[in-house]
Amino acid sequence: MSIVSVPAVDVPRGRTRTVRVALAGCGVVGGSLVRLIRSGHAEVAARHRIRFELVRVLVRDRHRPRDPTLPHEVLTDDADDFLAAESDLVVEAIGGIQPALRIARAALESGRRYVTANKALVAAYGPRLAALARRRGGRLDFESSVGGGIPVVRALRDSLGLAGIRGVQGVLNGTTNFILTRMAEGRPYAGALAAARAEGFAEADPIRDLDGTDAAEKISILAWLAFGVRPDTLPIRRRGIVPHAERLVRDARALGGAMRLVAECVRTSDGVVASVEPAILQLGSELASIQDEQNLVIVDTERNGRIRLAGPGAGGDPTASALLGDMVRSSLRLRSGAGAVKRAATRDPRTSRWAVSVEGHHEERLRAALRMAGISAAPVRRSGGTGLVVTEPVAWQSIADSIARLEAWGAEPVVSRYEMV
Amino acid sequence: MSIVSVPAVDVPRGRTRTVRVALAGCGVVGGSLVRLIRSGHAEVAARHRIRFELVRVLVRDRHRPRDPTLPHEVLTDDADDFLAAESDLVVEAIGGIQPALRIARAALESGRRYVTANKALVAAYGPRLAALARRRGGRLDFESSVGGGIPVVRALRDSLGLAGIRGVQGVLNGTTNFILTRMAEGRPYAGALAAARAEGFAEADPIRDLDGTDAAEKISILAWLAFGVRPDTLPIRRRGIVPHAERLVRDARALGGAMRLVAECVRTSDGVVASVEPAILQLGSELASIQDEQNLVIVDTERNGRIRLAGPGAGGDPTASALLGDMVRSSLRLRSGAGAVKRAATRDPRTSRWAVSVEGHHEERLRAALRMAGISAAPVRRSGGTGLVVTEPVAWQSIADSIARLEAWGAEPVVSRYEMV
Repeated sequence: MSIVSVPAVDVPRGRTRTVRVALAGCGVVGGSLVRLIRSGHAEVAARHRIRFELVRVLVRDRHRPRDPTLPHEVLTDDADDFLAAESDLVVEAIGGIQPALRIARAALESGRRYVTANKALVAAYGPRLAALARRRGGRLDFESSVGGGIPVVRALRDSLGLAGIRGVQGVLNGTTNFILTRMAEGRPYAGALAAARAEGFAEADPIRDLDGTDAAEKISILAWLAFGVRPDTLPIRRRGIVPHAERLVRDARALGGAMRLVAECVRTSDGVVASVEPAILQLGSELASIQDEQNLVIVDTERNGRIRLAGPGAGGDPTASALLGDMVRSSLRLRSGAGAVKRAATRDPRTSRWAVSVEGHHEERLRAALRMAGISAAPVRRSGGTGLVVTEPVAWQSIADSIARLEAWGAEPVVSRYEMV
Repeated sequence: MSIVSVPAVDVPRGRTRTVRVALAGCGVVGGSLVRLIRSGHAEVAARHRIRFELVRVLVRDRHRPRDPTLPHEVLTDDADDFLAAESDLVVEAIGGIQPALRIARAALESGRRYVTANKALVAAYGPRLAALARRRGGRLDFESSVGGGIPVVRALRDSLGLAGIRGVQGVLNGTTNFILTRMAEGRPYAGALAAARAEGFAEADPIRDLDGTDAAEKISILAWLAFGVRPDTLPIRRRGIVPHAERLVRDARALGGAMRLVAECVRTSDGVVASVEPAILQLGSELASIQDEQNLVIVDTERNGRIRLAGPGAGGDPTASALLGDMVRSSLRLRSGAGAVKRAATRDPRTSRWAVSVEGHHEERLRAALRMAGISAAPVRRSGGTGLVVTEPVAWQSIADSIARLEAWGAEPVVSRYEMV
């Protein structure tokens, strides 16, 4: 078997370029990003021929000790000083409208590229900032503003535009979903909120999550991408899970369903409508199955059917990873960002339990073959004329040897990987 | 409420350009594409400022009557004639290695852009064709080769490359999944296969689906995108659902699980390993929940968690839609493809059933408020001290009026959308 390590889909040619990055904000997301830029340094250089250099980091308090550590001369607490630094790319992980808007405008006005995780900013000013970027030859990217590490912005913006989107629906707020999941398990609201805080999924003041504001900003961004409607002009019927979270969960249980905070935008003959509201969903349905801080986005299309995208919707690492992806693409206008180049393995080290069955009169042979291979297996009681066992976890090669032996003996073994937990 | 119709994220400026397209293949997928190019003409022009002109269509028999109809002078059954036509973009929907490979090489050699739905071709020659495209200034796109209308190629190529991919797992063959779903409902194999054929999900000779070849080609393409490993060098442990489909389904049932044909590639310390094989899965698990011709791809990442992408994995329309998306992006190096521009609605015409609850001593007021609004509602028996009803389907505005009335009366109504089926 030939093992070849090749460059991935589209490695650009030429020497590694340095991209000067000014980062606004070094909290949970910004800190994760700094760590990721450092740990991913070699991979980004090998794969994309670029090297990110942090030239300035805007923080609230430049004297506070911080992890990751940053050179003192890189830190600033002054937005003007931050903007005056020569940079190619401005990354913003502050949140809120100001000073983010001022930074975004100044960066784009000067033709720089802007990457942001700030959903409030994009929901309120996205189209105007995008227009400014176009006029000045810059670029605006905001994958990390919706859905954490799920590439939903890119899917709507680049992939599903011609599929004929009818509507977008989803669970877009990880904090409320975490709380609702815990409450469905019997925890009271206060305990569920405390657990969300302990896990880092709720901020000190999570009211924007709980009252549906966060989900409303996200669905307005998705409505912009899906339908071109300006997010700040889209009326959104919005209700959160406060102040009656316990009643909501109780009502859902009384009706035999699950409570979820569902965001949606839909094309109607009158135009686009949108809502964020508590919904009681069939147990086992896709939206009800989304647990904890996970997010799910369902894109209903005319031509591609119902496309579902799911994954962790919150957390510093997924958001930082989405930011880094935007930074790379923004720097290269990349057509590709495939993972690290790996070679094919010469042998398969994965082990698994295996369900092996034979026709009933070969049952003894099945036991013998497995015994000869030194594989323990438990018989399964069943109706019908075949012997069926489930093995201990072993590599495929061990099973393959037994199978070959059984086949030589005239049995017709049938093998499935056994993935029951 | 101001209603503004704005251009979407990134409409290019300037006049509409004509892109000359040579299409190889006019079967199920190619025919869908011709229809889609025609029906989507106005939208593609408005949104992307391009117009696709079909200059040549390669078919097996140019005299056969066909729907959609094509001008006689556009049709050819000669590959040389097809390649001699002046075109900017060659689209291939034939399948199989030859003559697709010859067409791909000739097109890319001459610096043209190539868009293909051909998984066998990409699995065997993808990296070499991509290198040829880079050398000659052309471009290779193949979103539609895996996952039908699910944007999985783009997600792996453009979005998740820096997330630290550990593995990719999924149900990648719609035909076998359709058959396994029917068999789990009690249909015999032959009947399930016949049903798949009747629904258009199985070809006359579906052996490449049934023996796992199709899924193996797809997982090798995903391994290329995820890990940079050359797909034609990746050994894949492959077993399909034939010849023992009924035993596989019976074994899964005996073990209380569901049978799925699972494709996967995983990074190990030895390199990348891959498999396509029958697996018995926990009922209710994500893979087991994928029904009929649906596909699911799970990307396990270090930084973004487990990203799941699901949707219809087969069919002419989703595949044609993915081809058209690639054609547009290939023509523009687009950063955006948002949907048709829609305005926000002035009123929300959606109706829904609503669960409304009040504290027990307000129960009479709840009934009165709904009666005054002319809304019928069924009471729900429940333990605890609150009244709970589920209404007939009405628009939110009707409920909002009742809520306002109840609040004026001192009750604290709690409302959920009721989405139980």
